[in-house]
Amino acid sequence: MIKLMVNMNRVKAWYQEIVELTEVEAGYTRLAFSDKEEAAHKWLIHKLEAIQCSVKQDRIHNVYGRMGDTTGPSIAFGSHLDTVPDGGLFDGTLGVIAGLECLYMLYEQHVQPDVPLELICFTGEEANILGGTFGSRAIAGLVTFTTEFEQKSRQLGFSKDDLESVRKKKGDFISFLEMHIEQGAVLEQSHQKIGIVEGIAGMIRLDVHLYGKAAHAGTTPMSMRDDALVLAARLVQSVNEWAAEPNSQVVATIGRLQVIPNTPSVVPGEVQLIVEVRGMNWKKVLNLKNRVEEWLLMNGQNQFKTVVEKHPAALSDSVKLEINRATASLSIPFINMVSGANHDTNAMSTLTDTGMIFVPSRGGISHHPDEYTSWEDIKTGIQVMFQSLMNLYEKHLGGRTQNDE
Amino acid sequence: MIKLMVNMNRVKAWYQEIVELTEVEAGYTRLAFSDKEEAAHKWLIHKLEAIQCSVKQDRIHNVYGRMGDTTGPSIAFGSHLDTVPDGGLFDGTLGVIAGLECLYMLYEQHVQPDVPLELICFTGEEANILGGTFGSRAIAGLVTFTTEFEQKSRQLGFSKDDLESVRKKKGDFISFLEMHIEQGAVLEQSHQKIGIVEGIAGMIRLDVHLYGKAAHAGTTPMSMRDDALVLAARLVQSVNEWAAEPNSQVVATIGRLQVIPNTPSVVPGEVQLIVEVRGMNWKKVLNLKNRVEEWLLMNGQNQFKTVVEKHPAALSDSVKLEINRATASLSIPFINMVSGANHDTNAMSTLTDTGMIFVPSRGGISHHPDEYTSWEDIKTGIQVMFQSLMNLYEKHLGGRTQNDE
Repeated sequence: MIKLMVNMNRVKAWYQEIVELTEVEAGYTRLAFSDKEEAAHKWLIHKLEAIQCSVKQDRIHNVYGRMGDTTGPSIAFGSHLDTVPDGGLFDGTLGVIAGLECLYMLYEQHVQPDVPLELICFTGEEANILGGTFGSRAIAGLVTFTTEFEQKSRQLGFSKDDLESVRKKKGDFISFLEMHIEQGAVLEQSHQKIGIVEGIAGMIRLDVHLYGKAAHAGTTPMSMRDDALVLAARLVQSVNEWAAEPNSQVVATIGRLQVIPNTPSVVPGEVQLIVEVRGMNWKKVLNLKNRVEEWLLMNGQNQFKTVVEKHPAALSDSVKLEINRATASLSIPFINMVSGANHDTNAMSTLTDTGMIFVPSRGGISHHPDEYTSWEDIKTGIQVMFQSLMNLYEKHLGGRTQNDE
Repeated sequence: MIKLMVNMNRVKAWYQEIVELTEVEAGYTRLAFSDKEEAAHKWLIHKLEAIQCSVKQDRIHNVYGRMGDTTGPSIAFGSHLDTVPDGGLFDGTLGVIAGLECLYMLYEQHVQPDVPLELICFTGEEANILGGTFGSRAIAGLVTFTTEFEQKSRQLGFSKDDLESVRKKKGDFISFLEMHIEQGAVLEQSHQKIGIVEGIAGMIRLDVHLYGKAAHAGTTPMSMRDDALVLAARLVQSVNEWAAEPNSQVVATIGRLQVIPNTPSVVPGEVQLIVEVRGMNWKKVLNLKNRVEEWLLMNGQNQFKTVVEKHPAALSDSVKLEINRATASLSIPFINMVSGANHDTNAMSTLTDTGMIFVPSRGGISHHPDEYTSWEDIKTGIQVMFQSLMNLYEKHLGGRTQNDE
């Protein structure tokens, strides 16, 4: 019987080591494709080699650490080590450290798994010029190689060949599991420690240019104005109201808005903004987007286009069941929930059965230096993750794990 | 009898010469305190010297060109030669060229005025780090010399002594007259060629910081949000509605608005904006500002401060009468109107009796390369300006002008 003995001193020490590789100013910064991210990758490779894993880094910087056979399908798990600018300590990093801790527990107990267990650290998960979840999308073959994309990826030194070389096939994984901070306040407000993710919300971003008529703010009577910001204000309110309707089943946000020319003495002639809609129910997402587009056309505005479209990912029932069994055997209460944020698991779910485990985020804060999950909650999360992996492993073998003891 | 014979070929040629000194890209650019503005000043000095005016440039670059006695109070007129970035050909420039043409007409007819006639070209009228209408405010002693201001003015090479040296006293001018494009569409829409300005609107700018709570746009349910942009949208609409009320007697604009952090995936945590209110009736201006402040407090927001406060300027009845008489003698119809925009005349009105003559702006467009006033309308404007100056001159002398003929 493999023992579940999470070493939190080790986990804490690893956090400290990663902070030392990070740019620390207003927050913690290890941008996608930066030297800092790559230093964290090298740190991980070193940690994996120390426990005799076979380690590989592909041509776009994804890191793989495998325990057991070097070939054949693996039970995979992981997350990412890049951060947003001035982000926190836990987003992404926790999933990688939790996976590493699982491998260390097995190594200490001299387990030689009959099916390979594989930690994956994806590159470029956060927003970057090649798009968020870049590493996992490349692995899953979800990257569209347009001319514009080719130019951007060349800036980072990646050729089309490089992207082709990192692709995986459906048979390469038995399953994929990701532990992550919730990045919302649902667990905290419901006083739960574990969220079992049922699906990852889909997302649409509509890039909108609203046109009015720039005019002198002193000499133009109110009745002669065509103020693009007044129109935008109506849209901001309408989108907010529509998403807040009882049966909307989506969230919608205007998080970016730019006024042109943005001068106190000029009635705004143009406003550029992005309407983002997210939800598990893709029809409902499209529904709200259509409502926005109808509103725009009704107001004489036809400059809009969909710039991001990510379909929802339903996670695998079989993986959920094993996480569920893990929480039951450890007597840890949980809730089922939807991930509003996108994750590498989304792309991985096109290749294999996937599951996600959420741990609480204090105050729901993420992408911010105040991002925080207690060591106790982290320990609980690693326990559930480890046990879930063991369940998946046993289920795959149809029996118990091999054990040198 | 002095003849009114505006030489439009000369006026057009001067425009051409000024364009050649200007940075011409998307529009026409001669920024305050730039080499381009100074080149235009030097051009003007050269033109004034050619007709034997006594010319002076003060320590902050204002230019004075005087015909007649070098001492004693003058009948003054003028405008400015700086522009906004990518501005038009007429704002400011027209008033200087019109004044220059008046002097040229007198010179050609060998007039030696018994009271000095003085063209003033003010520096830094457009928005700049020392504040708009800088040159005229300095002349009128309206510049407050704070520590912050001292640092900024030092960047431009101006000391406190320099500013003191340019100040004028009440007895230095008999009157001041400025011809300017309307910068609005009131003349065009009422099919009139001349606007006699009754007053210059006052202006208040309120700098507002609205605070909500930044949150992940995917993981934060609508019910748990505190979106600063949704709040700002309500303010934008309310301000617009309040100013549009039948008896508001003001215009109000939110022309600058900045979302923080301005990222599609983050519910805005903060919005910074400027509410600008303008009107001739200062009570009404304060009234709308108070309404905004009450709204802010009612919505739990207390981060706002007044950053600009310019009181309305009532122009002189006696100068208006002479402009009125000029239009009557020339059989040119006119309307009385308020200037929504600020002008050098505003500061000058604290020193002497002032008046303004507006000519039409096509489409009401200004501060833009499409700014346009027809040569015909310009000619009419210069005629009214010249005749108004002659009326002021005669009135001051209590008789007719001296004439060498």
